[in-house]
Amino acid sequence: MGRWEPNARGRLAEAALELYSERGFEQTTVAEIAKRAGLTERTYFRHYADKREVLFGGSELHDLLVGAVAGAPEDAGTVDVLAVGLDAVSAMFDDRKAFARRRQAVIAANAELQERELIKLASLSAALAGALRGRGLPAPAADLGAEVGIAVFKVGFERWIADGEERAMAPVMREALDELVGLTAGAGHGA
Amino acid sequence: MGRWEPNARGRLAEAALELYSERGFEQTTVAEIAKRAGLTERTYFRHYADKREVLFGGSELHDLLVGAVAGAPEDAGTVDVLAVGLDAVSAMFDDRKAFARRRQAVIAANAELQERELIKLASLSAALAGALRGRGLPAPAADLGAEVGIAVFKVGFERWIADGEERAMAPVMREALDELVGLTAGAGHGA
Repeated sequence: MGRWEPNARGRLAEAALELYSERGFEQTTVAEIAKRAGLTERTYFRHYADKREVLFGGSELHDLLVGAVAGAPEDAGTVDVLAVGLDAVSAMFDDRKAFARRRQAVIAANAELQERELIKLASLSAALAGALRGRGLPAPAADLGAEVGIAVFKVGFERWIADGEERAMAPVMREALDELVGLTAGAGHGA
Repeated sequence: MGRWEPNARGRLAEAALELYSERGFEQTTVAEIAKRAGLTERTYFRHYADKREVLFGGSELHDLLVGAVAGAPEDAGTVDVLAVGLDAVSAMFDDRKAFARRRQAVIAANAELQERELIKLASLSAALAGALRGRGLPAPAADLGAEVGIAVFKVGFERWIADGEERAMAPVMREALDELVGLTAGAGHGA
């Protein structure tokens, strides 16, 4: 297993983001990322499967969301359960706004990275649906609730990293969730 | 431009789906698809940029959705506008259920095809957001409405092609949209 590398994951992610920002994702090699982080290629591949994965962290987001949804009050409605989940993931992001902004700029510049991001969100949606089913929600409602929850997360995330937006993530997510409720309130079904 | 090939796009799509189902996406070449369709590789690439694209049609879905949303009654709320859009795209799919089911089985078996599908849905969401902004909706509400609309479309589509589901697409989409309204109705904001 080699010697213990303090915070190797974080150092590799920071080095990768620096290099992708400076010279582009395509033009950067894993060897260069490892070197910039003061680590070896072997250490890189112990932590990340490929050049894209370093920007998408581990299972932290997934675990936080699933855990919070599972632990939400038993009698909470779907929107309130989603609010609990979004609060939990928001807490994780709050000291990472500068990183998130630089990361988003890199992703926006590269189609492969956009693909990976979409896949991660689809997988997060599947996990959220599983957590909602675990609360006793029937599968069709759980799938819909999860897709809608991830839609709010996507929109909220974009707003949170927007230029000039300095709030913490949780109130931005709550605002988007409230807008969802407002959007559908009093909708005429017969149009 | 070569001679006119009657329904070359449709013939190529059918041939590709047959071959992908029989032997797998990876194991099929463009030359084989063209041959099965009685056309040339050159004709294939006149219609589709690569091996994946043949399963994702052209701009028909995009154009129908954007056109219907733009043409919805001026005073319609967002949910009703989404209903008009979903009705329009549903009409296009109704004679294609068998094809859609076979296509989904092929996509489910291949990660590259799943990626392309996610990209297509993201692009459809961006187009829908543009159409909602075109109706005068502010950008944040338009982005949220579009993401939620595509979430309903995804869930509705999966239900529509499920085994044993024999209804047309429009009522299935309406049902999912009604569930969305029900999901958020009376949500407590203070949880």
